[in-house]
Formats: sequence, structure tokens, C-alpha cells
Amino acid sequence: MKYALLSVWDKTGIVDLARTLVENDFKLLSSGGTAKELSNAGIEITEVSEYTGAPEMMDGRVKTLHPKIHGGLLGRRGIDDAVMAERGIEKIDLLVVNLYPFEDMSGKGLPLNELVEYIDIGGPAMIRAAAKNFRDVAVVTDPKDYDFIKAAVKENGLTEAERLYLARKVFSRMAAYDGAISNYLYSIESEFPEVFSVQFRNGRELRYGENPHQKAAVYGESGIAGQKSLQGKAMSYNNYLDTDSAVRLLREFDETAAVIVKHNNPCGVAVGDTLHEAYIRARDVDPVSAYGGIVALNREVGPDMAEEIASTFIEVVIAPSYTREALEIMKRKENMRVLVLPPDEETQELRTIDGGALVQKTPKDITENWEVVTEREPTADEMEAMKLAMKICKHTKSNAIIFADKKSALGIGAGQMNRVNSAEIAVSKAQFSLKGSAVASDAFLPFPDTLEVAAKAGATALLQPGGSIRDKEVIEAANRLNVAMVFTGVRHFRH
Amino acid sequence: MKYALLSVWDKTGIVDLARTLVENDFKLLSSGGTAKELSNAGIEITEVSEYTGAPEMMDGRVKTLHPKIHGGLLGRRGIDDAVMAERGIEKIDLLVVNLYPFEDMSGKGLPLNELVEYIDIGGPAMIRAAAKNFRDVAVVTDPKDYDFIKAAVKENGLTEAERLYLARKVFSRMAAYDGAISNYLYSIESEFPEVFSVQFRNGRELRYGENPHQKAAVYGESGIAGQKSLQGKAMSYNNYLDTDSAVRLLREFDETAAVIVKHNNPCGVAVGDTLHEAYIRARDVDPVSAYGGIVALNREVGPDMAEEIASTFIEVVIAPSYTREALEIMKRKENMRVLVLPPDEETQELRTIDGGALVQKTPKDITENWEVVTEREPTADEMEAMKLAMKICKHTKSNAIIFADKKSALGIGAGQMNRVNSAEIAVSKAQFSLKGSAVASDAFLPFPDTLEVAAKAGATALLQPGGSIRDKEVIEAANRLNVAMVFTGVRHFRH
Repeated sequence: MKYALLSVWDKTGIVDLARTLVENDFKLLSSGGTAKELSNAGIEITEVSEYTGAPEMMDGRVKTLHPKIHGGLLGRRGIDDAVMAERGIEKIDLLVVNLYPFEDMSGKGLPLNELVEYIDIGGPAMIRAAAKNFRDVAVVTDPKDYDFIKAAVKENGLTEAERLYLARKVFSRMAAYDGAISNYLYSIESEFPEVFSVQFRNGRELRYGENPHQKAAVYGESGIAGQKSLQGKAMSYNNYLDTDSAVRLLREFDETAAVIVKHNNPCGVAVGDTLHEAYIRARDVDPVSAYGGIVALNREVGPDMAEEIASTFIEVVIAPSYTREALEIMKRKENMRVLVLPPDEETQELRTIDGGALVQKTPKDITENWEVVTEREPTADEMEAMKLAMKICKHTKSNAIIFADKKSALGIGAGQMNRVNSAEIAVSKAQFSLKGSAVASDAFLPFPDTLEVAAKAGATALLQPGGSIRDKEVIEAANRLNVAMVFTGVRHFRH
Repeated sequence: MKYALLSVWDKTGIVDLARTLVENDFKLLSSGGTAKELSNAGIEITEVSEYTGAPEMMDGRVKTLHPKIHGGLLGRRGIDDAVMAERGIEKIDLLVVNLYPFEDMSGKGLPLNELVEYIDIGGPAMIRAAAKNFRDVAVVTDPKDYDFIKAAVKENGLTEAERLYLARKVFSRMAAYDGAISNYLYSIESEFPEVFSVQFRNGRELRYGENPHQKAAVYGESGIAGQKSLQGKAMSYNNYLDTDSAVRLLREFDETAAVIVKHNNPCGVAVGDTLHEAYIRARDVDPVSAYGGIVALNREVGPDMAEEIASTFIEVVIAPSYTREALEIMKRKENMRVLVLPPDEETQELRTIDGGALVQKTPKDITENWEVVTEREPTADEMEAMKLAMKICKHTKSNAIIFADKKSALGIGAGQMNRVNSAEIAVSKAQFSLKGSAVASDAFLPFPDTLEVAAKAGATALLQPGGSIRDKEVIEAANRLNVAMVFTGVRHFRH
């Protein structure tokens, strides 16, 4: 006779699994709600307390923490048989347990003394014991595995490789579970827990990292990280990084917009009445850089857009959806990756540095306090152009200076150690006239020089956070040059 | 009578702690090696097996997994008193446990069936139980806490806040422990585990993140992340990020070198016979950008260097050491942060993206295969200058083009979406003649244009990975312009 112990919080599929086990000569041990559910379904079980001879106590706090259970899970077949026989310990070959839902409950605002009741003790003790003894015992913690377990018990039982697979899941589940408890308890004291436990799932090794001599993997079950390209080559490390940047910028727009990213910076951004119009405009901001770029679009891709994309070299396209015809057309570019734009999720950023990591949260809604600081008020068109310029500026590596009109970026100055250089680059890269354009700066102008470069190039409006000790000087320069200037109060460095 | 249960792998301080407990009316329960150690020291203990009536079995696999132990840990004082009395369960008020050293042992190349013996089952079950019941039970898992425990038991016992502190440590310890087991088991199959559990410790909230509207924290116990500034303002998010970049570049040098970083890119890099010489040279690469920068130095800072630093505005200085006099001088700049250069540790990079994360490992030693591809061989000076240029190039945001002589960067072109723009920026920013300089490119030249810009500016040697489909064209241009060109075979993108 083989024994299986079943004790689950999430009862999904448990009756069906139990029935299959009974049909295949398993004797079932169970307790609490699981025992009741199985009995109600007419499945014969032995109560754990009956088996151990120790009644459940303390409102269920102590049920399975007993040598007859743990001996049955930890006993090494072939080594500990005698002691098991002597003490009436049955070999438990299969353990099916899932845990009290601490993670779900911790978000419900319960007081700590109620929440601690969702910290499972008996379950973790059993699954860890069984996982340690994976050579002899199979431990199932995920209802998604029931189908494969049922199939296996109907055939020849589980292989050692399958039991190891299940054991791995136990320890990763426990790391996540106790990580969540730890994070919760540390977060009582401060917004960022002093010890921060995190787990990344669905890891897939990449061909290489940022460069071929670097090894890398991508992790994630949702968002950009979680998805598979609909076609083309596998996503590379740099594809993920660039697509992430492109999508962050794209999410600034409710209106139809196109973003092209290269080397983690936007090289073309525009809005339009149609997606095709927005894309053409974005591409023309810097057509040389756009070649081989990442294209992010916020409307469905139809055939005309697909034709345009298929006419050049693009590494990755990402859009909310594609018509069937568009997908057919894009197949012509067999290497091109095609992704689906995921919904915007709340996340926090984490990046490692020497010896540790930086963690950062960005609020969803940032209130900028726009204040006109010059004698001349910006026109409605200038206001729109400044708004567009700042959207782009937020997602460009610092120091960033962006020239734009109300439809499109015109000049993008990125990643310089000196702000006026960024302005000069933006001007020198512009393909179209900057006359009447607006400029955005990610941080305050420390001197009037950037403004002077902008005005000389034809800009008539400038948006910046303000806050320099030389603001007065910069405002005077703006008045002198008839540039309408607005302070936002909010800096947008990005590194 | 109060009960304490002691069961530790790491026996540091345990005898002393036990003695204090006995002196303060604790009755001790213990088992295995701990019991032996305490008995040998003349401390009276009760064996767990004697207390439970269940002999230890399976080579110690099952000792404490018993209702009399777990009831004593989980029983709620005031609620479960009757059942405890009825079943002869003593209240265990203090639990002292540390775990089998899985993490240490997993690095020793043991076969899995031996290594699993270091997966602790009984210890985790007890400490998790006691931590859940922290209102009534104190659980000590870290010998570093023994002093405070001894002091507390001599006085009025532990407060609830102290017991909660100890409980938090249990769950963070368990998340790390089971995370290590999980990572190990998943790593059997692939270099990057499919599920990756990681824990960051020593979290400290920062004033704000990359920008004032972002909240952030830094984590880490070693390296740059782990240390406190010797003076000045608290390190900011951007300070950490920039210091990390500066130090990565500095670590390229064995010879005396100085690096200045601004906005996460180097704006000055040089070597010299003395640190002072290297620093002055580095600063003069781009004195405007160097203002307010991060300065990283790889030799002890003496008074002359300190005077130089204190004469301008620098956000952060990092160097292996400082003379006492130098530290005194730097105090004049009371806001400036002063850090100690940490030893180079093996690490992997992790950065989150939408829905997940990218993880990357960079090998310590990268073999570049230098191959002269032009008719003219580079001179010894050109070789040295190319080497220096590539060291800098590796740590500059892509696309990166660096002009250098054999002592110093001369022009730094960073972070452009188009390679030739980076070359133009580098040329336009150069403060000194580029005649006879060498150029490094982080990735291959797709066209001869970048080379032409470099040659026109006076460069006579160019180092690049090679590998473009137009390599032949680029080589022909180099021959025509009498530029000595070397291919390395190794790309160095950095984003």
C-alpha cells in the first residue's frame, strides 16, 4: 500500500487528483478542510490525527508536525525501513500541499495579529522535508502539476528527474513565500524593507548579453520580459533593453504615436492622425539612426503600416495588435521581432551596483507646476510643442535637450556630460527648420548658454524645471531673446 | 520555570549564552551536537528526545518535529494554556537555532545526495513556528544577537518589538536559505537558474531617487553600495550610480590613474607618474563637465591631491586610502562625499525591465585578438594610445568614440544613436590637438565616415572590433588616409 498525504488551501482539482490516487492503490492521509472536502466527495481518507494518534490542536496550528508524518516523508527507503516499521511509520510517497495564502492576504490591510494566522507552518515543514527526500518522495505544491501527476501514477509513477523538478519548485516557492513575509514585516517600519527579497521567474538564457563575451538571461512572466516574439529571431539583451525604453516613452501618449529607439535613446518620436503618419514623421526625425531601430506604436498595425515597416531594416516592432494581413506582410522580414504591447503595470526599478543595488519607485502621476516666468506667454502651439518635447526628454539619457513642434521631435540631444553640448547636438542633428520650435531640458539651465543656442537655432519657447541659482539671469536672457519660458518644478534625469 | 530550546550548527557563543540562560532560571532543551557541547561545558540540559519521549531517528533527520516541541513554540499564551497543560507541553519562550550550512557547502562540489544532507528541515520548522508566534516566543538565529539577548534576559526579558525584530530575521534568513537551495537546484540544469531568488540586505532609504519625485533606497553590505561616506552629505542615488561607473572604469588601470564621471559617462580620464598629474590631466580633458563630477583615483590621496580636490566643486571622491593630512584638508569641503575604493568583487549585473529583469555576467578576463588590418602597423605610441582609448570606450555609453593619446583621453563622444555623431562630438569637445591621436570605437564602423572624421581631426590610429560587412571599404579608407587600424574582435556596448 502506498500512502499520499493531501493538505491544501487551494482546493482546485484536489478531488479529481485524490480519486485518481485512490484508483491507483494510494491510501490517503488528510486533515482539516481538505479531509472534509474529500470525504464529502465520497473519497475514503484517514485523518492525520487518527494516524498519528495526536489530536489536532491550537485551532489547527499543530496537526502534521509529528514524527509519524515527518518520518514518513524523511525516511530514506532502504536505509530507514527498520526504524519506520518499528515505530509504525508509513512511507508517504506522495505529498500534495499548498500553503496558506499569505501573499494575497498581506495586501488586505489586516492587523498583524490576524495576518500571522496566514503564515503557514505545517505545510512548509512537510514540503521542505519531502523535497529534501526527493529521491523517494514526490511533493506537489502547484495545482498546475496535477495533470502530469495523474498521468504518472496511472503509468509507472514518477521518475527521479520529475521528483527533482518538484523539489526545485518547493524551494523556489518557499523562497518567494518567506521573502513575501520578510518584505511585509520589514515594510512595517519603512517603505523600502531593510532586507529585500525578490524572485524572478521564467528565466531564459539569451544568446549573449550586451556584448557577445557576456552571458545573460531574461526573466519575467509578464510585460515585455514575459513574452515571446510572434516571429523572427529571438530577442537579444539589447532588444529587451531598447524595447523597454521605447515602451516607457510610448506610454506617455494617449494620442496616436510612434517611437523609434536606438542605443536606448529615442531617435524619432511623433504623433499623427494615423499611425502611418506618426511613424513616417518619427522616422524622418533622424532617418539614419532609425535604420535598425526599435519601433513602438500605440495603435493596431494594419497593412499600410506593415508595408512601411517591411520596407526597411527594423530590429523590433511592438504594437497593441496587428491585423492578420499586417502579420502576413511582416513575415517578409523574417528576422524582425514582432511583440505585443503589454498593459502598463506598476513596477519598481532595481539595478545592481558594486556590492549591492539601487531600488527606485516612480509615482504614476507626477504633478508638474507649470509657471510662465517670462514676459511673453507661450502660444497654444508653443505649449503643445513644449509638452511633447518634455515627454520625449523624460525618456532620453541625461543631459537631454529636445527640440519639437507640436507633432514631432525635431532635434534630440542625448547623453552629454555638459548641457550646452546636448543643445548643440540637437541643433546639429535637426533635419528640418527649428524656427518656431519649442525646447525641453530635463534639468534646470545652469547658465543662459543653452537658451542662447536654442534661440539662435530658431526656438521660441523653452520648458525646464527651473531652480538654478542663476534663474534670474536665464529669465532675463529669455526676455531679451523673446523666448517664452515655463518652469515645471520637476526634474527628469535618466541615466 | 521558563524553557529555552538550543540547537545550533554554528556553536559560536552558545555555551556562554546557555550559561546566562541557566543563571536566569531557564531550563534548557537541546539535542545532538549542541546538547553534547553544553553538557561538556557542565551545563545542565534536557535532551529533546527525553522530553518528547520520541527517540531521535534517521541519523538526526527527525528530532524536533514533534507536537511537544511545536506545541511549545506555537501555543498562544492565554489561549492554548489548557491544551498545553493537558498534554504536558511546556511553553518554550526562547528558541536559539541556526541552520545547517547549505550555502557554504553548496560551493564545495559535493554530489547532490551528500549536499541534500545540509538542507536543514527541523531547524527551519522550529524557527518559522516561533517567529509566527513572536508575540509569545523569542527566536534567535544569529549569534550576533546573543549579547542583546543576554542583556535582555538579565533585565526584564525581551519586548514585543524585539521579538518582532527577531521574527523578521527568521523570515529573511529563510528566504535567503531556500533561495540558495532553489538557485542551486535550478543551476544544475543551466547557468542561469530558471527561477532566480535574490536578497539585498542593509537597505537604507535615500533622500530621493534619480529625481526628487522618485523614492529610492540603496542596498548592500559591501563594495560601493555598502559603505558610508567618511564625510559630507549622504550619498544620493545619482552619486551611487556615477561612482559605480567611475570605479568600473578605474579598475581597468594598474598604473596611476584618475577618472572623472558626470551623468554616468567619463568626462576625463588620464594616467600619470603621480596621482596629482593624472588628475590634472583628466580634469583638463573637459574642465567644464568635470565641475561637480565624481572623481575616482587608484592611489592614496596625499595633501597635494587633497588641496587640488578641495579647490573646486566635486560631488564624490573615491580612492583606496587617504593620508590623515589629506582628510583634514578635504574637510574644508564639508558637503563633499569621500569614499574608500573597495576591492573588486565578482558580481553579476541585474536590471529590471517591464515585467521582469535582465541578468548579465561579464567574464573577468576578456581576450581581445588584436589584428593589424592596414598596410601601416601602428607605432608603439599609437598602440598605447589605442589601448587607453579602448579602456575608456568600454565604460562610455554607446555609441562611444574616444580619442586619446597614451596618457589621457582627448575627446569623448558618448551616447549617440549614430556612430559618426559620436565621433563629431568627440572632435568638437577636444580641448587639445588631436594630431597623432588614436581613436577607439565600442563597436565596428559600419561605414568609412567615422574613420574619415577621425583622420580629418588628426587621428593616425584607430581601434575597433571589426566585423562589418563593409570592413574592406573601411580598411581601404584607412590605407588611403594612412591611419593604422587594428581589429580587436570584441565589442563593448554599454547602455
